[in-house]
Amino acid sequence: MKLNDNTAVLLLHCPDKPGILAAVTEFINQHSGNILYLDQYVNREEKVFFMRVKWDLDTFQIPKEKIQDYFQTLLASRFDMHFRLYFSDAKPRMAIFVSKMPHCLYDLLSRYAAGEWHVDIPLIISNHPDMEPVAKRFGIEYYYFPVNKDNKAEQEAKELELLKSKGITFCVLARYMQILSPEFINHYPDRIINIHHSFLPAFMGAKPYHAAHERGVKIIGATSHYVTTDLDAGPIIEQDVTRISHVDTVDVLIHKGRDLEKIVLSRAVEKHIERKTLTYKNRTVVFQ
Amino acid sequence: MKLNDNTAVLLLHCPDKPGILAAVTEFINQHSGNILYLDQYVNREEKVFFMRVKWDLDTFQIPKEKIQDYFQTLLASRFDMHFRLYFSDAKPRMAIFVSKMPHCLYDLLSRYAAGEWHVDIPLIISNHPDMEPVAKRFGIEYYYFPVNKDNKAEQEAKELELLKSKGITFCVLARYMQILSPEFINHYPDRIINIHHSFLPAFMGAKPYHAAHERGVKIIGATSHYVTTDLDAGPIIEQDVTRISHVDTVDVLIHKGRDLEKIVLSRAVEKHIERKTLTYKNRTVVFQ
Amino acid sequence: MKLNDNTAVLLLHCPDKPGILAAVTEFINQHSGNILYLDQYVNREEKVFFMRVKWDLDTFQIPKEKIQDYFQTLLASRFDMHFRLYFSDAKPRMAIFVSKMPHCLYDLLSRYAAGEWHVDIPLIISNHPDMEPVAKRFGIEYYYFPVNKDNKAEQEAKELELLKSKGITFCVLARYMQILSPEFINHYPDRIINIHHSFLPAFMGAKPYHAAHERGVKIIGATSHYVTTDLDAGPIIEQDVTRISHVDTVDVLIHKGRDLEKIVLSRAVEKHIERKTLTYKNRTVVFQ
Amino acid sequence: MKLNDNTAVLLLHCPDKPGILAAVTEFINQHSGNILYLDQYVNREEKVFFMRVKWDLDTFQIPKEKIQDYFQTLLASRFDMHFRLYFSDAKPRMAIFVSKMPHCLYDLLSRYAAGEWHVDIPLIISNHPDMEPVAKRFGIEYYYFPVNKDNKAEQEAKELELLKSKGITFCVLARYMQILSPEFINHYPDRIINIHHSFLPAFMGAKPYHAAHERGVKIIGATSHYVTTDLDAGPIIEQDVTRISHVDTVDVLIHKGRDLEKIVLSRAVEKHIERKTLTYKNRTVVFQ
Repeated sequence: MKLNDNTAVLLLHCPDKPGILAAVTEFINQHSGNILYLDQYVNREEKVFFMRVKWDLDTFQIPKEKIQDYFQTLLASRFDMHFRLYFSDAKPRMAIFVSKMPHCLYDLLSRYAAGEWHVDIPLIISNHPDMEPVAKRFGIEYYYFPVNKDNKAEQEAKELELLKSKGITFCVLARYMQILSPEFINHYPDRIINIHHSFLPAFMGAKPYHAAHERGVKIIGATSHYVTTDLDAGPIIEQDVTRISHVDTVDVLIHKGRDLEKIVLSRAVEKHIERKTLTYKNRTVVFQ
Repeated sequence: MKLNDNTAVLLLHCPDKPGILAAVTEFINQHSGNILYLDQYVNREEKVFFMRVKWDLDTFQIPKEKIQDYFQTLLASRFDMHFRLYFSDAKPRMAIFVSKMPHCLYDLLSRYAAGEWHVDIPLIISNHPDMEPVAKRFGIEYYYFPVNKDNKAEQEAKELELLKSKGITFCVLARYMQILSPEFINHYPDRIINIHHSFLPAFMGAKPYHAAHERGVKIIGATSHYVTTDLDAGPIIEQDVTRISHVDTVDVLIHKGRDLEKIVLSRAVEKHIERKTLTYKNRTVVFQ
Repeated sequence: MKLNDNTAVLLLHCPDKPGILAAVTEFINQHSGNILYLDQYVNREEKVFFMRVKWDLDTFQIPKEKIQDYFQTLLASRFDMHFRLYFSDAKPRMAIFVSKMPHCLYDLLSRYAAGEWHVDIPLIISNHPDMEPVAKRFGIEYYYFPVNKDNKAEQEAKELELLKSKGITFCVLARYMQILSPEFINHYPDRIINIHHSFLPAFMGAKPYHAAHERGVKIIGATSHYVTTDLDAGPIIEQDVTRISHVDTVDVLIHKGRDLEKIVLSRAVEKHIERKTLTYKNRTVVFQ
Repeated sequence: MKLNDNTAVLLLHCPDKPGILAAVTEFINQHSGNILYLDQYVNREEKVFFMRVKWDLDTFQIPKEKIQDYFQTLLASRFDMHFRLYFSDAKPRMAIFVSKMPHCLYDLLSRYAAGEWHVDIPLIISNHPDMEPVAKRFGIEYYYFPVNKDNKAEQEAKELELLKSKGITFCVLARYMQILSPEFINHYPDRIINIHHSFLPAFMGAKPYHAAHERGVKIIGATSHYVTTDLDAGPIIEQDVTRISHVDTVDVLIHKGRDLEKIVLSRAVEKHIERKTLTYKNRTVVFQ
């Protein structure tokens, strides 16, 4: 929660064997690092060890710029680890993609403006001009890239260039009603977060509230997930649901769904910003 | 809740037009019936009126055996109603179908034995002998009909005969792991209740917990529905969900799912027993 | 949902007796009103009838300005009704009271700016200057009334005058950390909505998250209610909860609670705007 | 889940300092124990370390009867630990206390009879004779101890003797409507589990559903907790809630509450049986 801290977060997974946990905690303790949070989990079926550890760098004796190298040499090689190391002074930089609906956009920007998140939001990208006034309210640059079948590759290329020039580290699709190409997606593996307005895998694709109404379900949901090249099939980060009844029309479902969508998306974004997510075999590990 | 009452319940639907509600309540009021509960709902898109009304028969001036006829003549014909009339002294008679898992069976029988429900349960039918000891604990007859590809039609015919001879009005599939034939199902339209161990329409068919784990969902569910000839696609009566996380194995999902399944099934059975459900175009109206 | 409609909403309660429902629906039907929504409920213990009905005025034969009088004469007197009549062209006018926390304020203003609600929000009142920039983002007037023990009566008098001059019909306390005097409250009976950051009646008063943490509860909640002169004891409109665990510090509870607070408050405000709430003996009836 | 395993569970807490986690995992790894599950949590405010670890004893080189002693000497003394060590072959032995309501009793016995839990239930104690037939269904001894003001001390003494003679390790109050004396409670610290039919700390004491209805809450709850000498104020193990509305009478609340009570109680009992609970300063740590 404290934003001015000087900390490191390490996320890793590797084949499970005895001694990993002890080795990692010793690595931090021996060099005078103060562990602030540690969460680990072993997938016994697949024999994979997962871990997130956060420690204070103020007293840590290894210089920040050498930690990656030391950890690679002393631990990652030995245990065959995949790991990512993050420092609190490198703020994630987030781009929002939006079409015409404001509810998720407002929720993201309100948290940002209120200082709830340790993140920068330098820009909003849209395939429609409608949300520009919302961007203006919050003083954020708005880029309008109309997309059609013919210009899609070209427009995405421009978007990618823009994202690169602004140092964007991850993208959030806040009800962006345009399918991204595999080429685009492959530039941001596990770094594009989408909100789908159904309880996936139920009601994939278009018009899920209409489909939910047609099927007569008693509960509707929303799902935030990392975008992969399989539509609505990427690793799920967060889901939530709300109860409905036979009296609720499609319009009521759309209305009730808005709160679900915005809260579920914001929870997922928060987990990503806090470096608490890790994907493995199209599933996520979400640390506490 | 009171079981020794002398009441009627009327469930109906018809094309919506002005005056239906007034006409039905006047029919009851004029003949000195005391309305105990009334719930109505209009589907404005399809212009259909739905209603459930329960009234006290003690002071009602139309003799019980003539109410059906009078209502048909005076109201149903006029408003083109489909209606069902139930009396509290005609207890529903329920048959339970079970295979090898006891949790739903115990939950149904415990409520029955505790006197929670206004129902009779004269028998349990199974395709396995395993649950006979549970039936015995509660003093209920247990019929074992082993079913395979070759004898299925023959065994179902025997089951139907048995159900008929015992005056069964509806069937509950309490994790019955055998698909009923369309012939069987057509004998009990909207009167066979199944529990499916997923949040339908996600994960239809076999092994939904395995599929949920594979997909990496963050919430699992259970769904009770009326059985139709489309597998797992009948009108949904009740659903509920519970949160899971990446640490939960398939075995844990199965374990957590048990409570969901039993509670969701029992809620649906209760709604059916209380004559609070009505189906329309493969959806249910569930009155309060 | 449609905002440009021409409709009336009638909310009423009266002693229960046969024929009320029929009389009210006939009153509307006879004069060619088209009922769009009707919900009724009878409290059998206390023998009180409650009803909400919404109808289209386009074809209604009684002139709008005479409906109140006709209904009083023809029905309300006869059945001893308390009723309120609302027209869709008289938009409710809402004032927001806020102190230093932005999350509820942003949620209310975002919905307003997105056009979700049929309401006007002419002003925001605060006992601190902190939220003025948020008001500016949305172009809403912000009035700063610092309150202390000595000037409270005087400041509240000014606030009341301001509210009157702006035609405010109800007030929303969006985490307003200042107790209103009985004099103030009595000007807006059932028309001041507060959000309390606990599952009332648990943890009334100050610092409910600290108290919840101290008690070791496994679930926290939020409660929106009409303000009465009894602190945190007015009629509850809406509540919701979220699961916590032993790992959650007070700061985490405060953080998790924000989403609860804003959603619960906005749901209550929406019900109020849609004229779906009615209070009776310090409880609310909330129509669907 | 597997019941025939040969495992140890260690629960501990101690002042937090670097190296505890490494020391405990090394203790198990060095002597060839295979860790099956590990969960740890640090309370940073109070600087207390909590841990639960479960390992396979089949390959563990320290003889089972010496583990307690070795762990005390090598680790507990060094880190000032409070710890408890459990072996899977020492099944917990549970006594159920009940009065007149069957729903929690049935739920506990059904799970027991279905083999869901690694526990023995040698007896049921009651202050009423009513539930004896339920005990008989499941073949469990039923002891009837009528209690009044005059004989309470005497009856409790007999109950304690009986519990001791049957080797009972913990008690479950399954809607036992009789307050236990401090003397009784002190014999089973953190080993008497109660279910209270409200969302504690709201509605402590008698008739919580009546109080909830009177207050007009929109959600009701149930709470399972360890019994202490402060009525309804012991460490909370589990809570859950369900939504209600203005139409629900006290009888409906009681009816809806039954499912809550039985599920919440059974979840708490399961956590206790699996040695996943630890109390600290009137709060519980509940491991996953």
